[in-house]
Amino acid sequence: MAVQKPSIPKGTRDFSPVEMARRNYLFDTIKSVFRRYGFQPLETPSMENLSTLLGKYGEEGDKLLFKVLNSGNFLKGIDAEEVQAAAESDNPVVLGNRICEKGLRYDLTVPFARYVVQHQNELVFPFKRYQIQPVWRADRPQKGRYREFYQCDVDVVGSKSLLNEVELIQIVQEVFAALKIRVTLKINNRKILYGISETIGHADKMMDITVAIDKLDKIGLDAVNEELAGRGLSPEAVAALRPILELSGSNREKLAAITAIIGEKSATGLKGIQEVTTILDYAEALGVVLPVELDLSLARGLNYYTGAIFEVKAMDFPMGSICGGGRYDDLTGIFGLPDTSGVGISFGADRIYDVLLGLDLFPAETAQSVRALFVNFGGAEELGALRLLSEVRRAGIAAEIYPEAAKMKKQFDYAQKRDILYMVFVGENELAARTATVKNIVTGEQRSIPFEAVADSLR
Amino acid sequence: MAVQKPSIPKGTRDFSPVEMARRNYLFDTIKSVFRRYGFQPLETPSMENLSTLLGKYGEEGDKLLFKVLNSGNFLKGIDAEEVQAAAESDNPVVLGNRICEKGLRYDLTVPFARYVVQHQNELVFPFKRYQIQPVWRADRPQKGRYREFYQCDVDVVGSKSLLNEVELIQIVQEVFAALKIRVTLKINNRKILYGISETIGHADKMMDITVAIDKLDKIGLDAVNEELAGRGLSPEAVAALRPILELSGSNREKLAAITAIIGEKSATGLKGIQEVTTILDYAEALGVVLPVELDLSLARGLNYYTGAIFEVKAMDFPMGSICGGGRYDDLTGIFGLPDTSGVGISFGADRIYDVLLGLDLFPAETAQSVRALFVNFGGAEELGALRLLSEVRRAGIAAEIYPEAAKMKKQFDYAQKRDILYMVFVGENELAARTATVKNIVTGEQRSIPFEAVADSLR
Repeated sequence: MAVQKPSIPKGTRDFSPVEMARRNYLFDTIKSVFRRYGFQPLETPSMENLSTLLGKYGEEGDKLLFKVLNSGNFLKGIDAEEVQAAAESDNPVVLGNRICEKGLRYDLTVPFARYVVQHQNELVFPFKRYQIQPVWRADRPQKGRYREFYQCDVDVVGSKSLLNEVELIQIVQEVFAALKIRVTLKINNRKILYGISETIGHADKMMDITVAIDKLDKIGLDAVNEELAGRGLSPEAVAALRPILELSGSNREKLAAITAIIGEKSATGLKGIQEVTTILDYAEALGVVLPVELDLSLARGLNYYTGAIFEVKAMDFPMGSICGGGRYDDLTGIFGLPDTSGVGISFGADRIYDVLLGLDLFPAETAQSVRALFVNFGGAEELGALRLLSEVRRAGIAAEIYPEAAKMKKQFDYAQKRDILYMVFVGENELAARTATVKNIVTGEQRSIPFEAVADSLR
Repeated sequence: MAVQKPSIPKGTRDFSPVEMARRNYLFDTIKSVFRRYGFQPLETPSMENLSTLLGKYGEEGDKLLFKVLNSGNFLKGIDAEEVQAAAESDNPVVLGNRICEKGLRYDLTVPFARYVVQHQNELVFPFKRYQIQPVWRADRPQKGRYREFYQCDVDVVGSKSLLNEVELIQIVQEVFAALKIRVTLKINNRKILYGISETIGHADKMMDITVAIDKLDKIGLDAVNEELAGRGLSPEAVAALRPILELSGSNREKLAAITAIIGEKSATGLKGIQEVTTILDYAEALGVVLPVELDLSLARGLNYYTGAIFEVKAMDFPMGSICGGGRYDDLTGIFGLPDTSGVGISFGADRIYDVLLGLDLFPAETAQSVRALFVNFGGAEELGALRLLSEVRRAGIAAEIYPEAAKMKKQFDYAQKRDILYMVFVGENELAARTATVKNIVTGEQRSIPFEAVADSLR
């Protein structure tokens, strides 16, 4: 066979041992917080039926699904004309969906909804789960955007209590405190956005209005007003919106101002205000120190979020949202389980990784997975070293021996390149005296230590 | 949209929280042993270029690859005739390989070889890595055989030292000791099998001879001899093989007997005998207590193994091999890096899981992921409970509160179904006295405990 130059598909990555150690640190930190809050792990298959995935992510999402070709004769039962038509078309989607009945997981939310509905009779509600798995999207790869990447989701379904929202805020606080990343959490509520639209007489234009509010920072008030007029808002509506666009001050001040504006004009809007108020009250009473800011321009996921909307940004590093989520009242309806409200948040593992790297926040130990290298002198010394090594490992210490009696320089280089802190020497004299020489590679310090104390000296 | 009845592709699985807890126990146990032996984690992408995978697993393996349909216009550049021809053929493999340039990982070995070659200039050799990831095979699903399953591999490349084989034996011993599964490790060596074939004058028929030896237990000596004759072995060769088939006794006795038979007739055979002897000597000197048995009928992976071959079976549970591996001298050659010997072993996670389940060896704690449920009485009591809950979590204990002030029976049922051991009550009187009532659900015992001692009482 010809020799192949090895490569991997664009937009995918290998994770080297060093990267894996960092990723494990990140995931372990997140998981340990999730667990303390009573969330339990779940995993779903990488492949879902294409019918489970199609139509759940909008037209654009459908295009980004990776489809898995049916095994065996994938053209069976498909007539030549159909194939011909597809070959002549520019975008043979229909044929694609005929020859593929499975697709790769696009996110963790839809598989989770599918799981909840499929297992509704075995599950105990409220069901609190976390899920950390890769997802795949046929997006154009670019810096920081991959075709295979991990999502890290935590959700509760089957409870409308706002305590769940509060718990998610606490989880955000604890995860980033543990990672030593300073963050701000922005909160909004879809009901308030709807209430504003209803108040100014354009309940049908919530999306347009929200998009315009979102642009305020970038393009200024006048341009926003112009855009709103362009989207069909009456001059009165644009004028009525003005005080909302200009809201400022503390969360409480903003809430008071919107309450005054909405008044009795939108019951939904007042419900949203009440929800945010309750969440903030709880957070305050529980001593949440994470900066939580009500931001009416926060408009992620308006297609599915029905209540709270969250977004988290790092304070000390330029990076988009590193965490986001919200409440969805009808996640499971499409699979036949209505009225099952849920709320969840997703941690952007790749972005958080980049922030940790950028701010140099990975603990140095994550690189040092092996504590000691036992030097291999061959012969009886080798056997002595191997026996001592077994003791050290039994004591729970990660250690290894160079597998051959190679030159000292080679063994030393190996230890150094592997970030191994200690070298342990069991030479002829040492073996006779049942002591080992333990050398700290970084400081150069070396000590003679009785065999039975070597394990402790390496901790 | 119409309601869909949710399901998952055949041969795939969801892992529920209980299953995840057990799987985590299994993987964490294995990983902690790997780490103590100096192995480092690696992960490769789920999708590889199809060219990386094709031709690596034999004709049968090629058929079992899951292929990923190219995004966008997958028929672009493929002319109508080609499509037509495929539609008329019974097995449109060629078209399949044209419209798919990626495939799902089929095992962890080929991606590992690809990784090593691709990163040869950055890696430090010997390179010791472990890798625990799912693989996909379009096999016919059946009991215990899945289309998505985890492999759990540990390999060293870049060292010919037999110490690596010894370390793998120690790892097997420690993993199964930690899991409390009694196992036997069978060892063989491809060089001995070749040596036997060479000795009886049929170096070309090693595979046939090995397959025949493998059947000895099932069909008996006479039938094996008949089969060997049918495969073209001369009567003299069959007669010469007889003493080898009838080998018995300890490992040392078997080695002595084969040495006598092979004599000077096969240098390769003697090399294999020497390798096994060295490995057994080391194991003995290092006090390996795992039963290691030389088994000349062990013939897995003869297409790629060049030295040691390993297989592990459970002693107390009927199950095929739960772990297997060996040495391969030319894993990376196909990707352009010759002369890089490696040795590795793979733990069959699904089978080991089934053995643990069958022998009831999962620790009871794996099911109890949450330690305490705080009962929700609403109002001021709720806030008191929430504050105490925060303290308890800060102390590292997994605990939760029922998110609504539901009826006691509902909250109790929830705790019981979730396998939560303790319920914590902070009612009106308790809040005033700053004590909580902590009840053990299993024993029914309950105690009144000051707030500041609650965390400790839940450990």
